[in-house]
Amino acid sequence: MLHFDSDYMRGAHPEVMRRIMECNLEQTPGYGSDEYTARASALILEACGLEEKESKVVFLVGGTQTNATIIDSFIPRRMGVLCTTTAHINVHEAGAVEYTGHKVLTLPSHEGKLSADDVRRYVSEFYADDSCKHMVAPGMAYISYPTELGTLYSRSELEDLSLVCHENGMILYLDGARLGYGLASDACDLTMKDIASLCDVFYFGGTKCGTLFGEAVVVKEASRWKNSITEVKQHGALLAKGRLLGLQFATLFTDGLYLKISRNAVEKAMKLREGFLAAGIKLYMDSPTNQQFFILPNELLDVLMQKASFELWGPRAETQTPVRFVTDWATSDEEINNLLSALYGFFR
Amino acid sequence: MLHFDSDYMRGAHPEVMRRIMECNLEQTPGYGSDEYTARASALILEACGLEEKESKVVFLVGGTQTNATIIDSFIPRRMGVLCTTTAHINVHEAGAVEYTGHKVLTLPSHEGKLSADDVRRYVSEFYADDSCKHMVAPGMAYISYPTELGTLYSRSELEDLSLVCHENGMILYLDGARLGYGLASDACDLTMKDIASLCDVFYFGGTKCGTLFGEAVVVKEASRWKNSITEVKQHGALLAKGRLLGLQFATLFTDGLYLKISRNAVEKAMKLREGFLAAGIKLYMDSPTNQQFFILPNELLDVLMQKASFELWGPRAETQTPVRFVTDWATSDEEINNLLSALYGFFR
Amino acid sequence: MLHFDSDYMRGAHPEVMRRIMECNLEQTPGYGSDEYTARASALILEACGLEEKESKVVFLVGGTQTNATIIDSFIPRRMGVLCTTTAHINVHEAGAVEYTGHKVLTLPSHEGKLSADDVRRYVSEFYADDSCKHMVAPGMAYISYPTELGTLYSRSELEDLSLVCHENGMILYLDGARLGYGLASDACDLTMKDIASLCDVFYFGGTKCGTLFGEAVVVKEASRWKNSITEVKQHGALLAKGRLLGLQFATLFTDGLYLKISRNAVEKAMKLREGFLAAGIKLYMDSPTNQQFFILPNELLDVLMQKASFELWGPRAETQTPVRFVTDWATSDEEINNLLSALYGFFR
Amino acid sequence: MLHFDSDYMRGAHPEVMRRIMECNLEQTPGYGSDEYTARASALILEACGLEEKESKVVFLVGGTQTNATIIDSFIPRRMGVLCTTTAHINVHEAGAVEYTGHKVLTLPSHEGKLSADDVRRYVSEFYADDSCKHMVAPGMAYISYPTELGTLYSRSELEDLSLVCHENGMILYLDGARLGYGLASDACDLTMKDIASLCDVFYFGGTKCGTLFGEAVVVKEASRWKNSITEVKQHGALLAKGRLLGLQFATLFTDGLYLKISRNAVEKAMKLREGFLAAGIKLYMDSPTNQQFFILPNELLDVLMQKASFELWGPRAETQTPVRFVTDWATSDEEINNLLSALYGFFR
Repeated sequence: MLHFDSDYMRGAHPEVMRRIMECNLEQTPGYGSDEYTARASALILEACGLEEKESKVVFLVGGTQTNATIIDSFIPRRMGVLCTTTAHINVHEAGAVEYTGHKVLTLPSHEGKLSADDVRRYVSEFYADDSCKHMVAPGMAYISYPTELGTLYSRSELEDLSLVCHENGMILYLDGARLGYGLASDACDLTMKDIASLCDVFYFGGTKCGTLFGEAVVVKEASRWKNSITEVKQHGALLAKGRLLGLQFATLFTDGLYLKISRNAVEKAMKLREGFLAAGIKLYMDSPTNQQFFILPNELLDVLMQKASFELWGPRAETQTPVRFVTDWATSDEEINNLLSALYGFFR
Repeated sequence: MLHFDSDYMRGAHPEVMRRIMECNLEQTPGYGSDEYTARASALILEACGLEEKESKVVFLVGGTQTNATIIDSFIPRRMGVLCTTTAHINVHEAGAVEYTGHKVLTLPSHEGKLSADDVRRYVSEFYADDSCKHMVAPGMAYISYPTELGTLYSRSELEDLSLVCHENGMILYLDGARLGYGLASDACDLTMKDIASLCDVFYFGGTKCGTLFGEAVVVKEASRWKNSITEVKQHGALLAKGRLLGLQFATLFTDGLYLKISRNAVEKAMKLREGFLAAGIKLYMDSPTNQQFFILPNELLDVLMQKASFELWGPRAETQTPVRFVTDWATSDEEINNLLSALYGFFR
Repeated sequence: MLHFDSDYMRGAHPEVMRRIMECNLEQTPGYGSDEYTARASALILEACGLEEKESKVVFLVGGTQTNATIIDSFIPRRMGVLCTTTAHINVHEAGAVEYTGHKVLTLPSHEGKLSADDVRRYVSEFYADDSCKHMVAPGMAYISYPTELGTLYSRSELEDLSLVCHENGMILYLDGARLGYGLASDACDLTMKDIASLCDVFYFGGTKCGTLFGEAVVVKEASRWKNSITEVKQHGALLAKGRLLGLQFATLFTDGLYLKISRNAVEKAMKLREGFLAAGIKLYMDSPTNQQFFILPNELLDVLMQKASFELWGPRAETQTPVRFVTDWATSDEEINNLLSALYGFFR
Repeated sequence: MLHFDSDYMRGAHPEVMRRIMECNLEQTPGYGSDEYTARASALILEACGLEEKESKVVFLVGGTQTNATIIDSFIPRRMGVLCTTTAHINVHEAGAVEYTGHKVLTLPSHEGKLSADDVRRYVSEFYADDSCKHMVAPGMAYISYPTELGTLYSRSELEDLSLVCHENGMILYLDGARLGYGLASDACDLTMKDIASLCDVFYFGGTKCGTLFGEAVVVKEASRWKNSITEVKQHGALLAKGRLLGLQFATLFTDGLYLKISRNAVEKAMKLREGFLAAGIKLYMDSPTNQQFFILPNELLDVLMQKASFELWGPRAETQTPVRFVTDWATSDEEINNLLSALYGFFR
């Protein structure tokens, strides 16, 4: 059986595991106060073109946890967070953001993306409303890169979002659960440094891009999150053996491993995509990253489900149904070939 | 200057004030454990056709407070509340519901109303989604009657909402901040008893319908809210001199005063509406209750704003702008006549 | 039957009621944006020796609500509030403070009072602890004046608390639910201006001192609470007919009415106290304000309970039980005389 | 340098690491829906003498997270959790429990233990208090085993706590962050089955007893936590690669590995203890588990700190200071010998 359900189905990259094993019996202080974590922070800041004196990196365990902690730590509860209707925080986080007391304010999704113009209009109408003191003010814009639909913001789109946020005293937060797979795409015209410069806070996702778990939050102005240890702890997100996060991210940020392994996922996704397009399958969404969305005739769907697991994207429809295939840093040519064989077999 | 901004601009109905004054120097126990409050509860339950053994009335001070307390007390935090995008809880309560940790789940507004079909579809798609355990389950439907746009649910619409909620284990909650003005409308085909029978919990608004403040929450099955005193207190909503709520509501529910005074607001609103329609003004929304929505040419808008205060319904547009005029239990013929004179003067 | 249970058993002072009645049918804008509220703010600031440009007054409805809203608005959730074990917020507010996410940090009660030395030691040990980042930092000290046991801080005690708070970046918050009864005591060596100068935020209680309801929060540096309307609303504490708060407090702060009527409660309490002491009854707590605490032999307790209602202070013990008698702005000589007659009758 | 700061300083037991490595490139479904997790659940329930039909195991990542999630999921927010003043949830969790809205209700610590008699008295006085509806009801008792001071409840003490909780409708929750080190102590007269039978919910700590991270929560009546996935997710505590938790705990619960490796820590702690006692050092607390507390003369303290890291238990005092030494599953005889050599060297 092949598996294309998601990019969190395997463990960690072998190099990451090797480092965890090497240090397994060493004793280090807890909660991220160890040398490995310091090293990882330094490597990440360097990759981002940020200074240790001004910026900081905070490591958390998982994505939903990171989103809730960041949103709650960066804006007061009277403020909400703007995002698209399709945003992960709006749909698939069990209300973890609202749990912290913050309203999620939704704007339309443009192939998964938030439009700077929409934000501009929202903010301007908000403050023009006489009753805005009775409403939840937008304090932050949340975007994901790549989006939940695999799409990417262009540099100019991100610049425009950064501009509208900063003109209006809002924080721009980028959820990079799959950041590697965005940066490794041919369609990407952004670098790590661009993102670090345009966003106030963002994270490099580890869980989906090579680690066992872990997300590395980059805070451009460290003074904005002075009490990160206490607030992370209060959200139940402080890992006792913090060095595990440090070791994993230090490995990923040595010799560009993060991008290197991400590149594999994108290459395999492109091969998969070309195979499906060649077979005449229609795209549901045009994604240049490791998530590929197709509309499958139900007969084909049933055949492929014998060979591979993958997600239906919404409820099964009458004749054809949108689906998602996801590759990762370890997806092999063989896996893709086997999937395409099953596909071609159907048409033969 | 005339004032049609809202229905909370005056104090209380003179009869209500008379009772507060009469008892002013009496001493009663606090927090609603007095005889006046018991009397008000009995009168309200009787008006609703409910039994004291099975149902209960809980008095709170204001609307936002009531909505947050009810939603938080009736569903667990993992559940959210379905409502229209235009619902008061979604727009004008400063995020008080999210503050309690609950997600507000929005569906389209049909002239301010929630559609039972939309709810049915939402619930069915929700539970059909494999990842629904990662999402906020709909635990309650919130409706307002009249809606924020002055419109009314018909009996069959309310029956359908009640059905879809109860078929799916959801609570139906009706926000009756202006309930009197709905029940007093000619377009209303529902009685207090119908509402009490179809909803699990609802409230009679006092603030906008004759009291200084106060909302009377009716809970059909008292066993669903056993710890109301503690939970109301924890939400900061327990009034020390609870008898003030009892006295006011006992007065409103003696000899049908609540409906009688509400009727005045609706009659005056209808007179206002006819006057505007006669002058060729277009409706923005067709409301049979005490809120009237028109689209005013901006020249007229400017003229009327010299004579009267009222709300722009959204930002001022280029040539014409939606506005809202609100009447209340004390609005006089003279006030309406003066407003209409100003209107006719413009066209003369 | 006589009633000495509490000081919230009657309505409002007649002068307050007269003003509410006078304006009853007037129309004013909502939520405290009216002229009466502005007038009340100005009068209160003047009484406090504060400037309108620098300070502000915010009106809320009840005490628990005020405490939760203030604490939550002035310190981040990672911080807690220091108070005595007997503090109202720690015991009798149904967890309203914890509901907002803040820990209540307790120190010993010294006849109801918080000791500056205890605070100093707590803070110093807290920051000396290597693991303090894993703990809840003290961000505020909460005191009540008079305390829950009727006692008063001396000027030097309050100065010392103010000093230790400000030396350690903490906010000093004074809960003045019964502030009038403290200021009117012969034992009080503080003025309104002293309190306003030493505390960062405090409130004049109305509910127990002459109004139907309402507490007037004084914020020394207005810049510390810029978004009070939104935050008060989000806590469900914003009164629609805000002018009711303005009218009541403007009346109390005209011609020194607040202190004048408070004085009555204290005088009657002293008369009651002298009567009990003369009869050989022992004090449970030596209070110079309107709450009087005695230890009653159970036989006397049973006799008095035939004539008067009052609170047992803790569970009924085997032979003698602590009790509390409370007077208010309207307590009459006749009431005290009748109570003392019952007392003396027992001993005859 | 030797390290006795805590029991979370090393990685995982080699056998646990071996299993993680073996499965590293396998693909499994996420969020604990994999076979390894099912296997771990079955093994744990078997060890506890519980049935899969009636009970359930839920895996979380860390201790503070687990405590906050359990407390919040098992009692409503109007209820609080009883514990000792020294309890981890009261002191060292950055207010994570209060963050969820629950009050932590403290009782005296008896060498770290909660007394059933104290609970009985508290509950009885609570409900005897007329104003208890204005207070936070005790809904749960929280104990740790071993306690934060290394001490153990006897079987009869735990039975008594279980009795008082269940007689009063309260949940008994046992925090087993170091459960292995308690069960492996010679002083322990309880089995896993006893604990599972007497507590409503408890957890086997992994982080401190052999895993990289992870806590296994055992719920006696599964029906009490039907929506665990959603609630764990909402608290940001659901691990994407849930199999990591399953693999680790399945290893620990195969062939009694959990107790076997815990035994090492206790043996080494006893050797350390005997060495210190032999040198005439006084105990600060008499602990039969892997945490050992001594009172060290400051000169000795300074000498030992050259050789080993360990925790001062409270601030450094003038002449002698309490300290804590902690062993773990991997502590070697050599480490103990080296520490004791340093100790004896001081006295030579």
